[in-house]
This record gives sequence, C-alpha cells and structure tokens, in this order.
Amino acid sequence: MKKLINDAADVVAEALVGMEAAHLERLRIDHANRIVYRKDAPRPGKVGLVSGGGSGHEPMHGGFVGPGMLDAACAGEVFTSPVPDQMMAATQAVDAGAGVLHIVKNYTGDVMNFEMAAELAAAESGIRVESVVTDDDVAVTDSLYTAGRRGVGVTVLLEKIVGAAAEAGRDLDALVELARRVNDQGRSMGMALTSCTVPAAGKPTFELGEDEMELGIGIHGEPGRERRAMAPAREVAEMLVEPILADLDLTGGPVICLLNGMGGTPLLEQYLMFGEVDRILKGKGVQVARSLVGNYITSLEMAGCSVTLLKADDEVLSLWDAPVNTPGLRWGC
Amino acid sequence: MKKLINDAADVVAEALVGMEAAHLERLRIDHANRIVYRKDAPRPGKVGLVSGGGSGHEPMHGGFVGPGMLDAACAGEVFTSPVPDQMMAATQAVDAGAGVLHIVKNYTGDVMNFEMAAELAAAESGIRVESVVTDDDVAVTDSLYTAGRRGVGVTVLLEKIVGAAAEAGRDLDALVELARRVNDQGRSMGMALTSCTVPAAGKPTFELGEDEMELGIGIHGEPGRERRAMAPAREVAEMLVEPILADLDLTGGPVICLLNGMGGTPLLEQYLMFGEVDRILKGKGVQVARSLVGNYITSLEMAGCSVTLLKADDEVLSLWDAPVNTPGLRWGC
Repeated sequence: MKKLINDAADVVAEALVGMEAAHLERLRIDHANRIVYRKDAPRPGKVGLVSGGGSGHEPMHGGFVGPGMLDAACAGEVFTSPVPDQMMAATQAVDAGAGVLHIVKNYTGDVMNFEMAAELAAAESGIRVESVVTDDDVAVTDSLYTAGRRGVGVTVLLEKIVGAAAEAGRDLDALVELARRVNDQGRSMGMALTSCTVPAAGKPTFELGEDEMELGIGIHGEPGRERRAMAPAREVAEMLVEPILADLDLTGGPVICLLNGMGGTPLLEQYLMFGEVDRILKGKGVQVARSLVGNYITSLEMAGCSVTLLKADDEVLSLWDAPVNTPGLRWGC
Repeated sequence: MKKLINDAADVVAEALVGMEAAHLERLRIDHANRIVYRKDAPRPGKVGLVSGGGSGHEPMHGGFVGPGMLDAACAGEVFTSPVPDQMMAATQAVDAGAGVLHIVKNYTGDVMNFEMAAELAAAESGIRVESVVTDDDVAVTDSLYTAGRRGVGVTVLLEKIVGAAAEAGRDLDALVELARRVNDQGRSMGMALTSCTVPAAGKPTFELGEDEMELGIGIHGEPGRERRAMAPAREVAEMLVEPILADLDLTGGPVICLLNGMGGTPLLEQYLMFGEVDRILKGKGVQVARSLVGNYITSLEMAGCSVTLLKADDEVLSLWDAPVNTPGLRWGC
C-alpha cells in the first residue's frame, strides 16, 4: 500500500486538520467529534442540514459544508459510518429552533446511527429532526452494506438543491418534501476499472483483472451487477445510462447530469465519458439542462466513474443555480 | 492499460467534445484547432491571454479559460506540445487590439512553438505578442523535455493572478511585468507514488517499486531528484517544502500555497498533506495567506502531489481574490 499518510489509524483526524487549515475562512471543525461545521452555524431561523458518512468519498460530505449547502457533516473512519454521538452533537450544534434535517445515504450503519442520533437529540434537547434517505443506485437491490438500493450521486445533487431551499428559509416540512422528491427523481449507476485500498486494511478491497471492469460498483468497492471485459468508453456509457433510463423515464423533461469520477480517473477521461453520455441522452430525447463533471463522490483512488441523472423542473433548476460556497461546489458567491 | 477511452488516437478530440457539452454557457471550442475559448472572447480593449500545452494535465489549461483567467487554451496531444498553427489561431482570435500575452510552461516544445506562433501572428496580422515562461520547479535544472527548470504549479497561480489583472484592464506591458514577477516569486516541488500511462503508449511511463517514490517528479513522469523508499506524509512534506525554502526565502511575508494532486491521489490524502505542509510552514515563520488544495495540474492518473509556494504582496492577494469563473477555478461570480 502506497499512500500519502502517516499512521493508518490517524488518516481521518489528520485530513480534518488539513481541511480546516485550507478553509479557515468558512469552516470550523470539531476535532474531538470529527464534525465539519459551516463557520456561521447555527443560523437563526434556518433549518439545520446535517449529513455524514464514512470518509474516503471526499469532497463528500465535508466538502459540501457552507452557505447554500450543509451546515454540518460527520466524518466516520474510512468507509465506516460515523457514530450516533457525532450525529447528535452536530444536530444540537446546528439547531436554531427551526429543526434539523438529516441527509443519509442508504447504508445500514448510516441509517441506523442517524436514526439513533435523531431519537437522542429529540429526547435530550427536544429538537425536531427529520430524515431523508437517498437510495438512487440502480445497480443492485440489497448489497454488502445495504438493505435496498444504495445512496450515491443523487446525494450530492440533493444536498445542493435542498441546501439552497434551506438557505432561502423554507421550513422543515417543505424541505423534507423537496428532499424526498429529489431522491425519487434521481438515479445513478457506476463502474470501476480498479479497486481501492482502505488504509487500515492495507490491501485492495477487491481484485480486477487487467482486462476486466466491474459494472454497478458500490462506492466502498461492493460488488456490482457483473464483472466483464473492458469495453470502449462509448459502450461503457451505454452500460451506465441504459439501466438508469430503464428504471426511470426521463425523456422530454430536462435533467441535471452528474458525471462523477471515482477518485483515480483523470479529468480528461471524465470529460470524454461525459461527451458519450451526453450524446446518448440527446439520441434518446433527454435534455441535459445542467451538468457537473468531476470528482464529487469518490472511493479513495478507485478508477472509474458513475452517472447520475436527476429529473429537474424549473424549481429544482432554480435551486441548483442558487449561490453555493463550499470547498467542493462553489458558484454565485 | 485500462482507461475510459475509445481509440487512443481520439482521446483529446473526444474529451474536448465532452468539455464543450459540459460548459456550453461559458466556453466555445474550435475542434479543428483544438482551442478552448472563453465564449465572449475577444473582449474589446482587453489584452488576450493565451496558454496551452500537452493534454493530460487537466484542468490545466482548458479548465482555466473564462472570465478572470485565460481567453484561450491550446490543447496538444497527451504530454505533447500544441503546434504553432494552433497557437497562432488562438492569438488571432483573442486579439482585440490591445495585444496578446502567451503564458508558456518551460518545456522545449512549448517554448519553441509559442515563439514561432508569436512571430507568425506579428508578421501576418501585426499583433503585438509578449510571452512569459514559467520555470518554478526547483527539483531539477534541465530535464528530459526542458532546458532550465520546468514550469509547473506556479502556472496555475499566474494564470489566475494575471487573468485578474487583464480583466481589470491592465495593458500588455504591465501584465508582462506582473507575470514575470509572479514567476520569479514562486517555487514548486513534486513527488509521485505511481507512474501514469499515456494512452498512445499503452504502458506506464516509468516503473516504481512497491516501496518506492520518485522525489522531484516532472508532470510528464520525467525523472526527479531521486528515487527513494516510501516515507510518512510528514517526511514527504518536509522533502517538498525544504528545497523550495532553500531556493527562495519566504519567511515573514505571506504566501499562496497550492497543494496539488497529481490526478490519482484521493482528496483525503491531499488534505492530510496540506496539514503537514501548513504545520511545517508555520514552524518556519511562513504565513499561508491563501491556499488551494486539489487536482489543478495533473499527470493523468499519477498518484502523488506537489507543493507550490508563491510570495504574495497585497496586490497579488487582491488579484488572487478577484472573481474568476472557469470550470477549474470559480469564485466571486
């Protein structure tokens, strides 16, 4: 294992030290609890948005904390759920009386721990907490870490869109409705060319042959739909787009398209893949109204990519376009 | 070789198709000449800024085209200089009577071809062209592709800073003076954990053993100062910062610090490395006034990172903070 780390046990804590130093002007970090906060949280009158999950998916979630997106993100160990105490501390810290929304990717540990944190926060501090669970990955139903579909790329889009609505002053009920609607209207599918190595494990999570790829890969390296021979980008793009469109009719209406790099795939290849995806969508009468190409929800140094498509009405597009100022997504301010 | 491509010969052309589709609102691309343009170029009265170089370093340079940064970027084949015709076409297209500045990384092919393009543009169209060559890499003097030091991370910072000054209406002479000053006051040093594979070559540029790293690596995989045993991040950070500070005294005054990922290194590790670099700088009385952590000048899927430090006075900091709206750097607008 070759990594730019010191001790495998200290990776997350030390990365948070660097993250804070890099973003002093907008973030503060509770190092004891491993929580990344928007510097000016809590914001009076605003619903607090809290997310979190295992580390190793950066910039998600800590990189999405800031005006127009999350108020707090809890960082677990690499590919390991944060604990309820972290989530409860974050919930208490961002509550300003308007309640708190938990944005949770559908992995068993995350869902269970966020549920426990919500109950504790309600019982101890009387905070109203609602949760939305993302489950947009069409690759598999149930997996190594999940009952039901996994939460992947839609989480990024949802945090942006619901973050804008929270910033605009919507109340908790309205945010819950919006968040569920966004999750319902988004789908993702990913693939990998290589595995990744969790620092504490010291060896690759799985092995792929020199001419193999894993279709429908999970963001922790969980098995996907099938392992198959490498194919040209245009065929890989079909393999990612087809299952999404088979699951959700997106013809006609505009979509937001995220072409996401898994961490180890050069931007050059990501743009090439986006070109293929865009061409396929055009051929099928799906109109890409907004797009995002880059590393947004990663799996350490895994090579590969995923496609996320989100049906977007005018309201969603306008929330997408609203200003956001986080390390990972920044525009309009 | 496992890559998300179709034919190795088409990688750059196809990536530009995807790049244009992803950034329709702000870029236009001349596909015949492989030039990425700011959509509203030429801007009357503004000096045109043109850069370019081999592909495979994305987001550099095409990702730095837009308001507040470059007017045009010429894309060569992977790790191969663009040709003079591209550079001349770009120069002619962005000239609005105020002249054109070429920002050139110090590699023999780039320098030669940009020189030829400048002469052709002057002779054919009477355009006044000036050039600034970046040569900030302290690792080696002369290398596989370079006479003198290589141009690396300072190029990113220079394109931002000089781009802001051009946007503010400074004339060509003032921009040349500023650009040379920025280059003089910046230094970089990089390292690699793994090689990278040029698509047309089909095999890794070099080999590194399981416990080896290359210190002072070039962005095309050119040899650095030494190949040595892997070391903890805190020691790697010393190995990058020390040669920079030995070359340029940065104590006291503020600096802009770029912790750059080479393409295959997770953001988690990049933040961890930035934390180490920041700690070392604090210990030496170097004040980091601004920072940037991420993949900005990459070497395809190479794992590794580089550190760039730029001495920054108030003028430079204010130009750094000015609005920029490109795919790769975006703030304030």
